[in-house]
Amino acid sequence: MIKHLQAIPIKNITIDDSFWAKRQTLIRETVIPYQWEAMNDTIPDAEPSHTVENFRIAAGELKADYYGQVFQDSDLAKWLEAAGYALSIKRDEKLEAIADGVIDLLGRAQQADGYLNTYFTVAKPGKKWTNLRDDHELYCAGHLIEAAVAYYEATGKRKVIDIMSRYADHMVDVFGRKPGQIRGYDGHPEIELALVRLYRVTGKIGYLELSRFFVDERGQVPYFFDIEEAGRTEHRVARRNADYFQAHLPVRAQKTAEGHSVRALYLFSGVTDLAVEYNDSELLEVSKELWRNVTRKRMYVTGGVGSNEYWESFTIDYDLPNDRAYTETCAAISLMFWASRMLQIEADREYADVMERVLYNGILSGISLDGKSYFYVNPLEVWPSACDVREDLRSVSKTRQAWFGCACCPPNIARLIASLGQYIYSYNESEQEWFVHLYIGGQAHQSIDGQRVQLTQQSNYPWEGHIYFTVAAEQPAEFTIALRLPGWCKDAMLKVNGESVALSSMTHKGYAKIKRVWLSGDRIELILPMAVEKVRSNPKVRENVGKLALQRGPIVFCLEEADNGEHLRDIRVSAASEFTARYDDGLLEGVVVLNGGAWRTDEASYDDDRLYQTDPFKSTPVQIKAIPYFAWANRKPGEMLVWLHENYL
Amino acid sequence: MIKHLQAIPIKNITIDDSFWAKRQTLIRETVIPYQWEAMNDTIPDAEPSHTVENFRIAAGELKADYYGQVFQDSDLAKWLEAAGYALSIKRDEKLEAIADGVIDLLGRAQQADGYLNTYFTVAKPGKKWTNLRDDHELYCAGHLIEAAVAYYEATGKRKVIDIMSRYADHMVDVFGRKPGQIRGYDGHPEIELALVRLYRVTGKIGYLELSRFFVDERGQVPYFFDIEEAGRTEHRVARRNADYFQAHLPVRAQKTAEGHSVRALYLFSGVTDLAVEYNDSELLEVSKELWRNVTRKRMYVTGGVGSNEYWESFTIDYDLPNDRAYTETCAAISLMFWASRMLQIEADREYADVMERVLYNGILSGISLDGKSYFYVNPLEVWPSACDVREDLRSVSKTRQAWFGCACCPPNIARLIASLGQYIYSYNESEQEWFVHLYIGGQAHQSIDGQRVQLTQQSNYPWEGHIYFTVAAEQPAEFTIALRLPGWCKDAMLKVNGESVALSSMTHKGYAKIKRVWLSGDRIELILPMAVEKVRSNPKVRENVGKLALQRGPIVFCLEEADNGEHLRDIRVSAASEFTARYDDGLLEGVVVLNGGAWRTDEASYDDDRLYQTDPFKSTPVQIKAIPYFAWANRKPGEMLVWLHENYL
Repeated sequence: MIKHLQAIPIKNITIDDSFWAKRQTLIRETVIPYQWEAMNDTIPDAEPSHTVENFRIAAGELKADYYGQVFQDSDLAKWLEAAGYALSIKRDEKLEAIADGVIDLLGRAQQADGYLNTYFTVAKPGKKWTNLRDDHELYCAGHLIEAAVAYYEATGKRKVIDIMSRYADHMVDVFGRKPGQIRGYDGHPEIELALVRLYRVTGKIGYLELSRFFVDERGQVPYFFDIEEAGRTEHRVARRNADYFQAHLPVRAQKTAEGHSVRALYLFSGVTDLAVEYNDSELLEVSKELWRNVTRKRMYVTGGVGSNEYWESFTIDYDLPNDRAYTETCAAISLMFWASRMLQIEADREYADVMERVLYNGILSGISLDGKSYFYVNPLEVWPSACDVREDLRSVSKTRQAWFGCACCPPNIARLIASLGQYIYSYNESEQEWFVHLYIGGQAHQSIDGQRVQLTQQSNYPWEGHIYFTVAAEQPAEFTIALRLPGWCKDAMLKVNGESVALSSMTHKGYAKIKRVWLSGDRIELILPMAVEKVRSNPKVRENVGKLALQRGPIVFCLEEADNGEHLRDIRVSAASEFTARYDDGLLEGVVVLNGGAWRTDEASYDDDRLYQTDPFKSTPVQIKAIPYFAWANRKPGEMLVWLHENYL
Repeated sequence: MIKHLQAIPIKNITIDDSFWAKRQTLIRETVIPYQWEAMNDTIPDAEPSHTVENFRIAAGELKADYYGQVFQDSDLAKWLEAAGYALSIKRDEKLEAIADGVIDLLGRAQQADGYLNTYFTVAKPGKKWTNLRDDHELYCAGHLIEAAVAYYEATGKRKVIDIMSRYADHMVDVFGRKPGQIRGYDGHPEIELALVRLYRVTGKIGYLELSRFFVDERGQVPYFFDIEEAGRTEHRVARRNADYFQAHLPVRAQKTAEGHSVRALYLFSGVTDLAVEYNDSELLEVSKELWRNVTRKRMYVTGGVGSNEYWESFTIDYDLPNDRAYTETCAAISLMFWASRMLQIEADREYADVMERVLYNGILSGISLDGKSYFYVNPLEVWPSACDVREDLRSVSKTRQAWFGCACCPPNIARLIASLGQYIYSYNESEQEWFVHLYIGGQAHQSIDGQRVQLTQQSNYPWEGHIYFTVAAEQPAEFTIALRLPGWCKDAMLKVNGESVALSSMTHKGYAKIKRVWLSGDRIELILPMAVEKVRSNPKVRENVGKLALQRGPIVFCLEEADNGEHLRDIRVSAASEFTARYDDGLLEGVVVLNGGAWRTDEASYDDDRLYQTDPFKSTPVQIKAIPYFAWANRKPGEMLVWLHENYL
């Protein structure tokens, strides 16, 4: 039996810390309204979206042509999902009214048989389910389902669940192994995890079975996408290899993460869900093997994944170039989705460490501090002048953009931040263990032995590692509080009601488990000293040999030209270089900066009239200043660098 | 007055050393016959060429469609040019008969007005001179002219000169500033330098004037390519920026090398020729400024140029990535063309050093040891597994190919090696100075004061730096022998007839000038100790910060997986590492190999279950073995690396 924890849901959680609360407010007050405007094409300089318009056309309320990507519907879905989470955080009548209006529009755009996709309804009415490989129908359906679940959980309003259940019922009819059914699967996974979510809300086993069907069919021979293509006259996109779609092998035979990284990680998230629901230890082993491949061979230090711009894909083990890192924001987000699912199966800090790494670095870099612009691509090194001329850097942008023609990342980051609460805690009912995965201040409550127990978390995380917990409960309650001791911290300390506790005996898979009868007012103090760490890559990562990255707590740092001048690659630090961390309230809306000694080549030891010389260079000591990676590109455009040369002095 | 030297022509030179003589033999006996077969499509596995067939069709002797690149004619031209040089080296009746047949075919394919281009004659009869930007008509003409000059100089047969003069006369009619003439220039420079060559053979000033016209028109406003395009209904290629064609500015205003690198360097070669012929100091200054830009900011240590696969182009200063180096073989060859022209104007070793650097490294890497396969792209680092999956490495080949659809490089390298003799010596008539630029063993003769004087050069270059010269002349002859002291050599020594000579007083711009009355049997011994040098890049070359390259004499070395295992990037050397050079007769047809101590990461200090760690690595001393860069990829495919991490221990 695969045991698993339950994430404590958003509605039981309040975030009130100094780091995330303002970001959630930004999402609620700025990003969600902005994205609503963007989808309604009312923002002057943004790329056209047409998303809402497409639904109006599909509903027969407007005569116009479909416009946008084939998966444009998913923008509205992700927005609605984010709105649902936002409403879980705080009621907002205006937003709820807009969202209800959107749901009504979904209902009107839905066809009699339950089908709901504006691209096919408007632009290709006779072609639905004819190109699962390229057309993202089930992908869009999956996002609409996720939105429905989020909105229902936030508001208790079933209408959107009913709409999406009708759609899912239609899918249950259309797909399967019976005669007349389509024995296929979508080119872009997403429906798999969405159907599990819908099953968990509705209890309808058919949805779970359909999800498993999609996973089990994927990659089987004969190859569905070939069969499908043979029956079709229209082939809109260039043929891609099966691994682009994770269909190169049956899912259960896959051992490495291949192809388009967002596709892969959405699929793996669904696979992990199914492993739990079906108690399928084979699928769990597949998940673990793929997890090891992604996180131990194919993940940047920022948690970014997908190192190849072409096909936005995984490549091969240890191929992690920094300037050409693709590391799409959506891929980082999907790694977090997957990590949290793995974590619910096994409370091992390995999963939470990855979740935290990608959250504070590879995800957060995707959005500007003001919430108004976004990176699709998150490289670890940028030389703007080269980006202007080199085709191999064509996808690297030196500034965040307002909105994208393919606007997957902005709404994805909005839904992630709005739903952040659900990643903080889990509860293990059978063992009565309350796990704390992330150190994000606020309140959470959980029913334990029929009693509502509240845990208050306070800290200045991620800038300081002192975290305080206070228990509140009317009656004494016996349960375990399990605190993650992050992998980045080498000398964590713990006090319960002021008394130091020896961690070694009580730590299991990176979680310190404090089992006792908790009384209201009991206080835990977790001290996670945040040394400035010098991180090295496995030397098989060619790009990073002889280099180190600076990390403090969960935050990976970078150098920017604004602080350090140009030619950042010519900065060298050493193992002995000391860095001091200081919180700078006035910089980048308040960040910790690192200052330390480094070397640059002494200008007197070379001559720009010589490109090559045999004389060794001399170095000049310099002071450098590093800022959190996520906060880069919030000032004027310039160079940025994460991995610094290590001087072996 | 721009003084200049005269290269001592091939026909006065015999090469009989152990390095180049066998390569010239390979070109004569294997490559030229092979390429003839290739152009006649009689090689089973090679890509189709159709080159000769196109001429037969144009001559009306065959009914078939044109096939091949728009510039396919240039393959035959470069082949004929190479055949000319080969016949200068050694008479070969069979080859001469084939070449005469080719010339007859050229004559039959030529139109009544002198026009000669099979693509237009066969495929676009009404469209000649309508798309100078893209269609390479003048480019092909230029190569045919170069071939004519080479063949005429080898054999004394004027027929081909007459054919090409008729063509050039036609161009003189067609192009110019008079009404009815086309006031334009070719998208691919080449005609400029070719017309100067034709002028030098025929004395017809019109050819020189046409060359200057092309150079002076280039980049003027209004922009010719726009005018031309406006008058045309057909636009076959995507619009490129004017800098691709070096037409972004008037040539005299250009200060940096932009766009397609072969185009740029052919143009600059022509510009340098015109500076001499017209005594045009402005053009000379343009050449020098561009030279400084290319060789001090945009040239790899191998002499390769053009760091961008896209558009095969120059990018920006110091942008020299090693794995994505494009460094087309033809670009390296054209750098040598230009360097030799600069050198004739000013006997400064700077030019000869570049010529030697590119010859022994970036050019020679383009051809396999057996002469049967070729690199178009010459990167300085190759990780074959990444080349298989990364789109940004799509042009990087881990093995040389037999022939290319765009077969510019193989015949270009053939003509370069066949004509190598002309790069070795120059003679300055007015000062009676005999310059030795390259140390390539053999005999050369020159008329001095009406007497034939012979210089015999002997050495084991490039493997050993002892070079012996012997003078032979019936009468004592007073003149200067000026020997290049290569920039790579820090402690050259010179003996004349066994007596040491102090170099400092006699060295001018890197040439040791020995002026005396030479008697037959006089002997010079030049000793150029070949230390293993550790070369560093200007630290503005981001890719090479903290790295060094190994060089000995003119040869740049590299590591190959065959000798050092995989993960070459994890090899570190230090300033103190000692390398020994040893000639290995059995390896790669005989090369010097370098052996020395280096470090690799101790496998015990990391764990493949961790991608990132904070513990510094420990290093293990290892022995590494480096081979000449030019000889890489002659064994089984594997990694290759030029720039090694420098351990600052």
